[in-house]
Amino acid sequence: MSPKTFHLNAFLMGVGHHEAAWRHPRTEAHRVLDVAHFQELGRIAERGKLDSVFFADGLAVGPRVQRNALAVFEPITLLSAIATATSRIGLIATASTSYNEPFNLARKFASLDHISHGRAGWNIVTSGGVDEAYNFGYDAIPEHARRYERAQEFVEVAIELWDSWESDAIVLDPETGVFADPDKVHTIDHHSERFRVRGPLNSPRGPQGRPLLVQAGSSEAGKEFAARYAEAVFTAQRTLEEGQRFYRDLKARLAKYGRAHGELKVLPGIVPFIADTEEQARALEQEFTDLISPDYALRQLSALLGVDLTEHALDAPLPPLPDESAIEGGKSRFTLVKELAEQEQLTVRGLIGKLGGGRGHRTLAGTPEQIADDLQAWFSGGAADGFNIMPPYLPGGLEDFVDRVVPILQARGLFRTEYTATTLRGHYGLEPVESQFAPDPTRLSPVSA
Amino acid sequence: MSPKTFHLNAFLMGVGHHEAAWRHPRTEAHRVLDVAHFQELGRIAERGKLDSVFFADGLAVGPRVQRNALAVFEPITLLSAIATATSRIGLIATASTSYNEPFNLARKFASLDHISHGRAGWNIVTSGGVDEAYNFGYDAIPEHARRYERAQEFVEVAIELWDSWESDAIVLDPETGVFADPDKVHTIDHHSERFRVRGPLNSPRGPQGRPLLVQAGSSEAGKEFAARYAEAVFTAQRTLEEGQRFYRDLKARLAKYGRAHGELKVLPGIVPFIADTEEQARALEQEFTDLISPDYALRQLSALLGVDLTEHALDAPLPPLPDESAIEGGKSRFTLVKELAEQEQLTVRGLIGKLGGGRGHRTLAGTPEQIADDLQAWFSGGAADGFNIMPPYLPGGLEDFVDRVVPILQARGLFRTEYTATTLRGHYGLEPVESQFAPDPTRLSPVSA
Repeated sequence: MSPKTFHLNAFLMGVGHHEAAWRHPRTEAHRVLDVAHFQELGRIAERGKLDSVFFADGLAVGPRVQRNALAVFEPITLLSAIATATSRIGLIATASTSYNEPFNLARKFASLDHISHGRAGWNIVTSGGVDEAYNFGYDAIPEHARRYERAQEFVEVAIELWDSWESDAIVLDPETGVFADPDKVHTIDHHSERFRVRGPLNSPRGPQGRPLLVQAGSSEAGKEFAARYAEAVFTAQRTLEEGQRFYRDLKARLAKYGRAHGELKVLPGIVPFIADTEEQARALEQEFTDLISPDYALRQLSALLGVDLTEHALDAPLPPLPDESAIEGGKSRFTLVKELAEQEQLTVRGLIGKLGGGRGHRTLAGTPEQIADDLQAWFSGGAADGFNIMPPYLPGGLEDFVDRVVPILQARGLFRTEYTATTLRGHYGLEPVESQFAPDPTRLSPVSA
Repeated sequence: MSPKTFHLNAFLMGVGHHEAAWRHPRTEAHRVLDVAHFQELGRIAERGKLDSVFFADGLAVGPRVQRNALAVFEPITLLSAIATATSRIGLIATASTSYNEPFNLARKFASLDHISHGRAGWNIVTSGGVDEAYNFGYDAIPEHARRYERAQEFVEVAIELWDSWESDAIVLDPETGVFADPDKVHTIDHHSERFRVRGPLNSPRGPQGRPLLVQAGSSEAGKEFAARYAEAVFTAQRTLEEGQRFYRDLKARLAKYGRAHGELKVLPGIVPFIADTEEQARALEQEFTDLISPDYALRQLSALLGVDLTEHALDAPLPPLPDESAIEGGKSRFTLVKELAEQEQLTVRGLIGKLGGGRGHRTLAGTPEQIADDLQAWFSGGAADGFNIMPPYLPGGLEDFVDRVVPILQARGLFRTEYTATTLRGHYGLEPVESQFAPDPTRLSPVSA
C-alpha cells in the first residue's frame, strides 16, 4: 500500500545551488556570511511545512579558492543556531565517518537533538577527496571499500552510544537524591581493531532516540549501506526510468536487512526555476547559465571527472573518460555525468551549462503547475517517496517553491497542510527508537499487574 | 599601570555548581535538559554586562552514573544556540586537544565565531581521565607531559588554520566573478610526526581572527602553557596570599614569550551565596550542604584524590594521600584539596562540605557588599584581573550576582556599566588578531600614495 503524500527536504547551500547564484541580482552574495540568512531559510521551509532542511559538507578547500570554499559555517553548529529560530523543521547535517571519532560525533548529534527537541538528522558520508585526506594526516584518499567498512562500523558504534542511555534513565528525584538510574545507563564495550569505545555516551538519550539517518551515495557500496542503515536517501536521477530503476533497486535490498519498504524514503533532487510561464522560467535559467565563470566550472568538472580539462577548448567534445572503477570519491556522480555527456554528445561548454544548476541533479524550469506535475509523475510512477529541493538561488528560489508549488501539492493531497509530528523522525513517518539495551517491553509491566 | 576595571566570566553548569543544587527548592532540576534555560542564563549574564559565559566539559561518564553525567549539551553546539539569543556576551567552550583533530576543532570555533559575530572563546584542555581514554581507543590515560606536548602543537596548528585566510580574502565581486582572492588564502603545510595538515581551513577568517584562548590548569606544565598561549586563565585559589603568589608567578612567565602583562587575564573562581545578611547567606549555604548525598560525594572525592574513600567512615580523618607526581589528571586541583584537608585537619565529611560548592574554588557567603568588598580586595591586592563567577544554583544565583553585586561594582568604578566592544576579545581588552600570513601592513599602502 503506497502512502498518498510525499516528503520534501530543502537542500540549502550558500545563496543558492546554481554555481553562479552569487553573481545574479536575485541574491546578495554577502549573506553567505550571515547566520540570520540561514535562520530565515529555516523559517521559510517551516512555513511550507517541509520535512527538513539539509546542509552538505566537505573537509577541505581545494588548492585554488573556489566557490564551495564558502562553506562558512560547519553544519552542526549552524543547525543549532537554526534550531533556536524554528520549532518544527527537521535539521539534517552532513558529517564524515572518515575523519571523526564516533564518540565525538554521536555526542554532537545527541546535543543537536536535545537543542532542537527531536529534530536532528545525520547525512552519513565517507570523505572521498584527496584534499580532505591531506588535512587529516593522510597522503592519499583512504580506499573506497575501506572507507565504507569504517563508515559501517562507525554507525554501529554511534547507535550503541545513543542506545547507552535508555529513554527513562533520567530520574531527577530531588527527594531521594537519585539523579539517574545506573541500571538504565550502559557501557557498550565496543572492541575492534578500528574502534575501542567503552561508553556510555555523556549525554542522555535524545528525544528521537537517535537522529534520522540519511545517506546520499549511489555507488554499489553506497546503495548497500543505505539499504542497511538509511531512513532517507538523497539521490541524483536524470530520467523517470532511471529514477524508477534506482527506487526499485534500493527498496529490493531492504528485505535482507529485515527492513520494510516504508522504512527508507527515496528523495531524488531537483533544481527548480519557477516563473509564471515556461518561457520566463527558461529565460531565468539562461540568465544564471550566462553568469557561469568557465575557469571555475572547468576546475570543478576536472575534479568531478578525474581528467584535467582546464586547458580544454570549451566548444570541443569531451576527451575519453576513465571507468568508474578508477574513481575513488563520488563514483555514482561520475557515472551519471559521464552518461549524460555521452548520451547527449555534449561539448565541454554544453556540459558545464547542464551541470551549473545542480551538479547533475535534474533542473526543472517551468510554471508552479508544471513543477508540481513533474513531482507528482515521479511520485505516482514509483520513482520517489519525496524530493530533495535544491533552490538555484536563495532565499527567493525557496520562497517561490514554498509559496507557489507547495500550495498546489497540498491542494492535490500530495503534501501535508500542517505538521502532524514534532520530530524529524515523525515527519518522515518513523517512530522514536528504543534502546537496544532496554529490557523486553513486557518486563516493564509489573508482575503483580 | 593597572587598569581600573576588572573582568567577569559566568561559569555555568546545569542548575548550579553546588553538587546538591538540583535537590534545592531554588532550582528546577529538569531544566538541565532544556536549552531555553541556558539561553536565559546567557541573557542574564548579558544584562549584567559580563564579559562571557563558559561551559566546562569532559568526554566520559564514569562507570556509575553521577551528577556530572548530565552534561546534556556539548558546549560548542550549546553556545551556538545561546549565540542566537544574545548579542554581546562572550561564549567560551571547553574542548579537548587530546581526542579531537585540529582541523575539525579549528573549524567549529571558526563557525561559532561567525555565528556569534565575534564572540567565540576556547578553553583549551587536555583530557586527564581514564574514563575518557576508554572512549577513544586507549587503555590508559596518555601521560601528562605528552598530553601537554600534543596540546601545544594542536594549538599551533589551529592558529595556523585560523590564519590560513587573511581577513580581506573574501572579495565577493559579482561583476568580475571573483569570489575570494586566492593569494590571501594559504596552505599551512604543517608536517610533524603528530599532525600533518595541509589546509587552508574551509571557513574564512572569523570576526575575531581567532577565538579568545583560555586555559584552566595550574600544574607546572599548565602554567607554562598558559603563559605561552592563554589570554584568560580560570584558576582556583584559596587565600589572597596564594592568589597573589599565583598571579605573580603566571605574569612573570609572560616575558619569555614576548608577551605583555595585560595580554593574560587571571580570573580566580568564586562560589557566591548572596543574601541580605551574612547570617542568612551562611544559612543558605548550609541548606545546600545538608542536601549533599554522601555516596555521590565520596565517589567524587575518591576520583579527585586517587584514593578509594567509598567505604571510609565519614567522620574519620582522611587516610594518607599520594604525592602530586602520582596523579595523572587534575594535578593542581589535587594539591589544592590535599593542602586544604591537611591544613584544616578535616574529616571526610568536613572536606565534602567544603568542596560541595565549587570543588575547591572559594565559597563566599555574605551580603552583596561583602562579596563586592572581597572581589575588590583581590583585584586591588594584585591577585586577580577579574573573576570566574560560579553560581551555586541557577538561574537564581546568577541573577543575584548580576542584579545585586554588579551594581555595587559599577558604582565603585570597578566594572563596566555598558559594553564598549562587540567581540569577546574586545571585552577582555584585546585587539582582533591579524593572520601570520598577511603581508607587512606597509604593503597595503599603494606605492603611488
